[in-house]
Amino acid sequence: MFRHVVLMTWGPGTTGDQVSAVLDGLAGLPAAIPGIRAYSFGTDAGLAPDNADLAVVADFDDEDGYRAYAAHPAHVALVTEHIRPILASRTAVQYRTGTGA
Amino acid sequence: MFRHVVLMTWGPGTTGDQVSAVLDGLAGLPAAIPGIRAYSFGTDAGLAPDNADLAVVADFDDEDGYRAYAAHPAHVALVTEHIRPILASRTAVQYRTGTGA
Repeated sequence: MFRHVVLMTWGPGTTGDQVSAVLDGLAGLPAAIPGIRAYSFGTDAGLAPDNADLAVVADFDDEDGYRAYAAHPAHVALVTEHIRPILASRTAVQYRTGTGA
Repeated sequence: MFRHVVLMTWGPGTTGDQVSAVLDGLAGLPAAIPGIRAYSFGTDAGLAPDNADLAVVADFDDEDGYRAYAAHPAHVALVTEHIRPILASRTAVQYRTGTGA
């Protein structure tokens, strides 16, 4: 299994409607991109002041599955139309998973 | 379920032995901390130059489970002895998960 983890922080002035559009878009990706094996995302619970605002954890069979996701038109459209306009910073890791969820 | 996601970047001069000590320490946490329901971590596959170096994805029953993990002596010792000395930056999100892995 190959896992993609990304943490995003929104810029100042980002509205709830803008964030909702991102969440709605993310929720639609598993149905649109067949290579997604598991997909989980959520907004930060607010326990730590330095945290990012949103996490996405996506699992694929292999690196090729991740690459297909990254390049998929549904994903690219979401990033271009809804994420990039409000994105202040982004950090990611992709890693091969053994056991565990 | 309550998920903790953290991405870490190591500072310049970090050695393979120092990273191995972190990975070995992480591998021991699920056996030491009973509140961990799922635990996955891995080093970045190197697909993107701006990526962080290590991801940890940990699942708990609830926020209290996460708090117990964060404060657990085995976790605190690993952070103090092996992670903090080589840590250049760290970003985290905690979020409540619904469906999905």
